[in-house]
Amino acid sequence: MAATTESEKKKQEEEEVQEQVVNPWEVSAKGKIDYDKLIDRFGCQKLDEALISRLERITSRTPHVFLRRGVFFAHRDFAEILDAYERGDKFYLYTGRGPSSEALHLGHLIPFMFTKYLQDVFKVPLVIQLTDDEKFFWKNLSIDECRRLARENAKDIIACGFDISKTFIFSDFNYVGGSFYKNMCEVGKRVTYNQAVGIFGFVGEDHIGKVSFPPVQAVPSFPSSFPHLFSGKENLRCLIPCAIDQDPYFRMTRDVAPKMGFHKPALIESLFFPALQGETGKMSASDPNSAIYVTDSAKDIKNKVNKHAFSGGQDSIEKHRQLGANLEVDIPVKYLTFFLEDDDELEHIKKEYGEGRMLTGEVKQRLIQVLTELVERHRRARASVTEEMVDAFMAIRPLPHMFD
Amino acid sequence: MAATTESEKKKQEEEEVQEQVVNPWEVSAKGKIDYDKLIDRFGCQKLDEALISRLERITSRTPHVFLRRGVFFAHRDFAEILDAYERGDKFYLYTGRGPSSEALHLGHLIPFMFTKYLQDVFKVPLVIQLTDDEKFFWKNLSIDECRRLARENAKDIIACGFDISKTFIFSDFNYVGGSFYKNMCEVGKRVTYNQAVGIFGFVGEDHIGKVSFPPVQAVPSFPSSFPHLFSGKENLRCLIPCAIDQDPYFRMTRDVAPKMGFHKPALIESLFFPALQGETGKMSASDPNSAIYVTDSAKDIKNKVNKHAFSGGQDSIEKHRQLGANLEVDIPVKYLTFFLEDDDELEHIKKEYGEGRMLTGEVKQRLIQVLTELVERHRRARASVTEEMVDAFMAIRPLPHMFD
Repeated sequence: MAATTESEKKKQEEEEVQEQVVNPWEVSAKGKIDYDKLIDRFGCQKLDEALISRLERITSRTPHVFLRRGVFFAHRDFAEILDAYERGDKFYLYTGRGPSSEALHLGHLIPFMFTKYLQDVFKVPLVIQLTDDEKFFWKNLSIDECRRLARENAKDIIACGFDISKTFIFSDFNYVGGSFYKNMCEVGKRVTYNQAVGIFGFVGEDHIGKVSFPPVQAVPSFPSSFPHLFSGKENLRCLIPCAIDQDPYFRMTRDVAPKMGFHKPALIESLFFPALQGETGKMSASDPNSAIYVTDSAKDIKNKVNKHAFSGGQDSIEKHRQLGANLEVDIPVKYLTFFLEDDDELEHIKKEYGEGRMLTGEVKQRLIQVLTELVERHRRARASVTEEMVDAFMAIRPLPHMFD
Repeated sequence: MAATTESEKKKQEEEEVQEQVVNPWEVSAKGKIDYDKLIDRFGCQKLDEALISRLERITSRTPHVFLRRGVFFAHRDFAEILDAYERGDKFYLYTGRGPSSEALHLGHLIPFMFTKYLQDVFKVPLVIQLTDDEKFFWKNLSIDECRRLARENAKDIIACGFDISKTFIFSDFNYVGGSFYKNMCEVGKRVTYNQAVGIFGFVGEDHIGKVSFPPVQAVPSFPSSFPHLFSGKENLRCLIPCAIDQDPYFRMTRDVAPKMGFHKPALIESLFFPALQGETGKMSASDPNSAIYVTDSAKDIKNKVNKHAFSGGQDSIEKHRQLGANLEVDIPVKYLTFFLEDDDELEHIKKEYGEGRMLTGEVKQRLIQVLTELVERHRRARASVTEEMVDAFMAIRPLPHMFD
């Protein structure tokens, strides 16, 4: 009996694994991603109401919309970061991006919008890694092209409004070396190939560039990788806001951190921003109609939302008035949940739409307004980012006011 | 019949593999290393009389004792280097050392003594890599200790007499980054894990630091890894003098070089310097009596040679006078073959000793003289190497007179 249960459990797990693949290079599921299962499998914690309330109390600010709406939904040791902060201990933020495309879509902005909020409320330094080496390893792109994309993407990141007195942006091809390389070696020495296979799913035909990469993404979690910023502050904690598909890197990092004499980095993790066609994973770079890009015109946005945003509304007006929309699968409502600031208005829309008094067209109309405004604001901000500003954010320099 | 031959051949090869292990981390054999088999298995060429004569003609210098005595005995594309040189095309030299111990033994000096000769006769630039990261990965040493050893070893290397206007010494922990790191990634992307296993014998329990290392030793073969030296000279050829156990790194490097738009590096490869106890491989770092160190006193040398150098002489004087010494296994004669400059004297000793007219004690006496002089000369040279000279050799700087 026990044996059957065990093997049944294993079979069930295997089916889950097949049904739902989430790693830094693939996010796919039959149907919707089951985030509760993901938390279970990865071994992180749910970001619950109590922790969000505590954050609100400590920061004296309404929690970010991404917290109120469960976009950032999981964490590791975030409570310890708050404990330390309340004791007067500082920390720093680390996030990043793999620069594989010219234009970012809205999903790409989410960690940066949230990281800016964290920087604002905690007044802490931030390092942003552009993994141009990773993209060289995983994509059919030249090093020069990856470096160019890193610099272009840096402009979009800067446009999110980070404080230059507290922010260091770096690309791996520019920055790997010195203390950073030493830490890469310290990490590499503590992870066996078999462990890396277990964490990242490498196969024998993968090239050794891929195998050598995980330490590169690990070491920004350690203050000594940035001697120009954190010299003499090797005990500083690190908090990483990221999408949950990056969790494998930081599981590995957290495992080696104490062996290297550092705190384990804390994490605060988001779910994936759904494709216009429906919520079955991340957006596809190969289908421009699956996402809203920060380069889309007002007309593009209008067309994409009207033509491609999957609706939970009913087939006919009569049926819709009678049954209401299925909010669980409705993309306009999902997108508004991410980007409509006003809680009351969102609740109103969900109620009216869900009970059939509001039509899909009206909800889409409101979404088009919200997205057009967001994209237009980003476009203006990005247009004002000069090459000199990029150089300034990426300069290897001390940040004397990073904790002010 | 054919099948039997095939499987017999395979069995024979497997036995050879077991009998004789030669890779960058292990050199062992039942009995003497069979260098002809090694050339066959690695796929390099024998350095024959014709090529040595050609070198003599081109350089107008008596070939180095290590060439006359077959110490450097194998090569890859050395003829192409000479072809290019005769056409007026330049090349550069690349050699290195893994800094795992404080004091070098005589075997460690061999590639450097030979490289100095090559630099002198060809008047070409030289890069010397100190793989402190490799030693961190393979030995139980801290990064700081590996870096300290790299700097100490640099003093011994400088003491070999390299021309500072043509020589750049670097340690990986100091130099990895920029163009060097880009080339590491270009190499890493072109070697699969399975290929690396085939070349280096990695196993799943090896850490990923080891797996990530081969590109680090590969890329000094490419001029663009040294933009301060070779900017605009990406077509420059590279010649690597090294012991043959390093061949696996450069087989890999030669495989990827054309895909990266570079010449395959040429190699000129030495056999191993035998232990005092006899010629069955390299010397053992764990047994100080197995080797003569550059830090040994005259008394140490005398004791080690007299007590530990394996003799091919006969058990009794009577038998020795009658049969003569077995020169094939005699370590004093082997060592003189490496370090006694005078061809006539060496021939005389071999004849007299081999025919029993000279006794082991007399040969050892001459060897003690030769080694004491060599070690004393090295000690004096090393004592005159200042910290400022180390800084100067290791400074990342252009070498405007490197081809003069």
